[in-house]
Amino acid sequence: MNAMSTLKILVIGGVAGGASAAARARRCNADAEITLLEKGPSISFANCGLPYQLGGEIKSRDQLLVATPELFWDRFRVQVKTRCEALKIDRQRRLVTCKDLESGETFDLPYDRLILSMGAEPLRPPFWTAGLTNVYSLWTLTDLDGLQAHLQTGNVRRVAVIGGGFVGLESVEQLHHRGVEVALIERNPQVLTPLDPEMAVPVEGALRAAGIKLFLGATVQRFITEGQTVTGIEFADGTHLDCQLVLMGVGVRPRTQLARDAGLTIGPAGGVAVNNLLQTSDPQIYACGDLVEYTHQVLDEPMRIPLGGPANRSGRIAGAHAACGDSLSMGAVLGTAIVRVFDETAACTGLNEKACRARGIEYRTAFVQATHHASYFPGALPMTLKLLYAPADGKVLGAQVVGKEGVDKRIDVIASVIHFGGTVHDLAQLDLAYAPPYGSAKDPIHMLGFTAENDLRSAPELAPPGIAMDGWQVVDVRTTAELESLPVPGAVHIPIDELAARWRELDPQRPTLTICQTAKRGHVAACWLRNQGFPIVKNITGGASIRKLLARATV
Amino acid sequence: MNAMSTLKILVIGGVAGGASAAARARRCNADAEITLLEKGPSISFANCGLPYQLGGEIKSRDQLLVATPELFWDRFRVQVKTRCEALKIDRQRRLVTCKDLESGETFDLPYDRLILSMGAEPLRPPFWTAGLTNVYSLWTLTDLDGLQAHLQTGNVRRVAVIGGGFVGLESVEQLHHRGVEVALIERNPQVLTPLDPEMAVPVEGALRAAGIKLFLGATVQRFITEGQTVTGIEFADGTHLDCQLVLMGVGVRPRTQLARDAGLTIGPAGGVAVNNLLQTSDPQIYACGDLVEYTHQVLDEPMRIPLGGPANRSGRIAGAHAACGDSLSMGAVLGTAIVRVFDETAACTGLNEKACRARGIEYRTAFVQATHHASYFPGALPMTLKLLYAPADGKVLGAQVVGKEGVDKRIDVIASVIHFGGTVHDLAQLDLAYAPPYGSAKDPIHMLGFTAENDLRSAPELAPPGIAMDGWQVVDVRTTAELESLPVPGAVHIPIDELAARWRELDPQRPTLTICQTAKRGHVAACWLRNQGFPIVKNITGGASIRKLLARATV
Repeated sequence: MNAMSTLKILVIGGVAGGASAAARARRCNADAEITLLEKGPSISFANCGLPYQLGGEIKSRDQLLVATPELFWDRFRVQVKTRCEALKIDRQRRLVTCKDLESGETFDLPYDRLILSMGAEPLRPPFWTAGLTNVYSLWTLTDLDGLQAHLQTGNVRRVAVIGGGFVGLESVEQLHHRGVEVALIERNPQVLTPLDPEMAVPVEGALRAAGIKLFLGATVQRFITEGQTVTGIEFADGTHLDCQLVLMGVGVRPRTQLARDAGLTIGPAGGVAVNNLLQTSDPQIYACGDLVEYTHQVLDEPMRIPLGGPANRSGRIAGAHAACGDSLSMGAVLGTAIVRVFDETAACTGLNEKACRARGIEYRTAFVQATHHASYFPGALPMTLKLLYAPADGKVLGAQVVGKEGVDKRIDVIASVIHFGGTVHDLAQLDLAYAPPYGSAKDPIHMLGFTAENDLRSAPELAPPGIAMDGWQVVDVRTTAELESLPVPGAVHIPIDELAARWRELDPQRPTLTICQTAKRGHVAACWLRNQGFPIVKNITGGASIRKLLARATV
Repeated sequence: MNAMSTLKILVIGGVAGGASAAARARRCNADAEITLLEKGPSISFANCGLPYQLGGEIKSRDQLLVATPELFWDRFRVQVKTRCEALKIDRQRRLVTCKDLESGETFDLPYDRLILSMGAEPLRPPFWTAGLTNVYSLWTLTDLDGLQAHLQTGNVRRVAVIGGGFVGLESVEQLHHRGVEVALIERNPQVLTPLDPEMAVPVEGALRAAGIKLFLGATVQRFITEGQTVTGIEFADGTHLDCQLVLMGVGVRPRTQLARDAGLTIGPAGGVAVNNLLQTSDPQIYACGDLVEYTHQVLDEPMRIPLGGPANRSGRIAGAHAACGDSLSMGAVLGTAIVRVFDETAACTGLNEKACRARGIEYRTAFVQATHHASYFPGALPMTLKLLYAPADGKVLGAQVVGKEGVDKRIDVIASVIHFGGTVHDLAQLDLAYAPPYGSAKDPIHMLGFTAENDLRSAPELAPPGIAMDGWQVVDVRTTAELESLPVPGAVHIPIDELAARWRELDPQRPTLTICQTAKRGHVAACWLRNQGFPIVKNITGGASIRKLLARATV
């Protein structure tokens, strides 16, 4: 670039970080010529709001339009070209060949800095074919418009949603609000695979309670069609499901073709490889948003995380560096995510058990069940928290939280602790805000820390909720009423408040497990027995209630 | 201590950490003889719930009784002696002289480890005298019972609450719910002195909107009495206020007399000095809860923080170390606190401006106004966040948040960042959970980080909201309608979306301030002018709306 000429910044893709990048570039450089190319009809729409508009919880489609091309010109002097596709990057001559999708004309746009933000596109499973008239994704405003129009015909009584991920579940809820019958089909034996199976059970319960038909571990063999219309789904086991509309939410893949064709490095996870300034293998070319791979904080390896938060942050950083060399750095990501499913909220951050096992990472787990604010304050609602941490140093590896209120707060605090490489001791020590309407003096976060601290000091150790009880002396310290509602076969029953008087009824030589409803009283019991000299005592983390979730999950 | 004899652990004070300490001691040691002495009639009650029971939001007084002496014996083999006061510690002989308040008898209790948890007691200002029949504090169940009985007589039409701190404000709200007229008297010119004045203004607004009569900056000269009954309050300026009942919430002081008499070291803040294992200057004697001084994370100096969170955590640590030498360590505290006042929630953590100024700590401030979840999602409510950070390295020093929803989450995340000594860059990089019902892709936390990052890089710099505008070229980039509702006299008006076309109307040589409603558009404007070569450009943080709060606060 000639130092005297105007810097030309070309941004390809107006959503998923591109609009952020363009606006930020302008804030860093008043002279640059900034152009934003978008294939679709609109830039910077709130794609996370699409499901909620589908069901009418967000009243108007216009509320999703975050910014218009006019505003981008007036405020930022960014020239927006919508309905315009980038076909090819000539890195040698720093030209992008573009096609105007209205006129069909092609033309070349020069750049000094190129920012790729084409985002991702819905995956098409093998049973999908083009041209079907009643099969939708929910990824763009155009998708939403098509779906809305189709539903408004009044000919849709039953919808099949394929894919029980975040967008799938949000769509299920909103379709249900519209009064259609909804069936959810998920290939895995659980919804929300970023959660471990037992933590997904309450979400599955909420879906069933609302009348959603769940098909878990169900492989779609093919669509049953009449002409170009799907009338039903055939599963691999030969069973059928009738439906008048199909909504696909089976994940997305990054739109990397343009980058691949230009010879830019694609990373191991299939996204465009970037450094922490969002530069690709060609330092004049940046990429951001769903297109790229971020560094995972815990794994320290590249990972695709197609979520709105990282997309916006990465766009901001790419725009600044491209426009003025400002070297803010993209932080690592944790895959922190949250979803509302009827009256349940489920959230996760960092690694889950499946990820640890797949990578051979040593971990321990602690469960806590608590109320979202002081239990004596009206409206206290239960939540379940699961923590994964390293046995060697107590470093927090990941967490999952499911409940009705306050889930977002707890997952954000744990995500902040993981950001700093914090340990379970940090969780125990955090000075959090407490008043009865907001939490407890010992917040669920503290309880997680305390529980894990005790485990790591063998004071006493935790046993996983799924532990096989053969060969153990199991002591159930619940009340008789609790026992009846949720029995633990083979256990010796001594209510906790009788244990100090009756513990000698137990065999002090046998390896012993303690259990109660949530593991709180089990902890007191395990401490007592351990301190009385029982050589091996473990408390079953999460107690009978988590054991029950686990049993339901593995049915 | 003879190694063969049973370890005797004596805990003095059943609330504010003492109950936690005793239970924890038992969990660490099955053989120790553990005794818990409590002056009052009950142990381990939820004192943070007292105001809420006063107003009936917590329906029953029994809900506040967390644990009974019977449970402590049955479950923990802790012998509880209520209505029993410790008079004197003989450190040489390891004896505590106690008095049974029922029988009047005194007796000695031996200890190997002593844990002091007498907590704090309400401060008595100079105008208070003993024996008044209608002046209450709200610190114990006995206080609550007295207040309830008095209110139930039906003779109370107007209550004066003295002290606008946390308990004072919770009590004001609950008394209002009972249908009495409430006047709030606060010596300082603002309520909630842990907040800076402008951040308290929305809380004062909520109080006034509910019909509470506020007397701020009002010094009580004396009670006007008829016999032993207060009938009114006389202020220092000679004005009077009639009332039939007085509730005092002017703060608490630690009950250090016993420790002082025993020659234990009292710290600079007036609490019992302890190390991070909660040992006093006598290593066999521990202290915890409201009695002690904790280390303040940011100041690294001892500080009294009489709050439920640290009290519980410190009791747990003291109990463990006393019982088995387990050396978990008490984390630093930040003074994180939160209060609900009608429909507003106010929270703080770390240092405020007053604390920084008093100690000569260099700081900068950034304000952000945002909605608690995605603005396009129904029910989005506004919140105001204030961040203090170090100019040298961006270290977060403190924060305050006021709003209607989601305040607790943001303060807890910032408290977690301060726990790790984190910076504004950490705030910008945190991977928080985002879905429209819970937050924004750029969360208010991120916006604080972005705003402060820009400030520290002079890209552009922020000006404090209270900056005197003389000598500055002030550019107001709001719409005409906004200008009318909240004028900024002397400003040049160029709406943001016209600035790129009209900026040459400004004098490029003059030091320039930009302003809008919340500082977002002001930021865009300041970037533009700075990048056009204006030598000095600053954006007024928080914009006209925070300037307005500040003006109201300093009236």
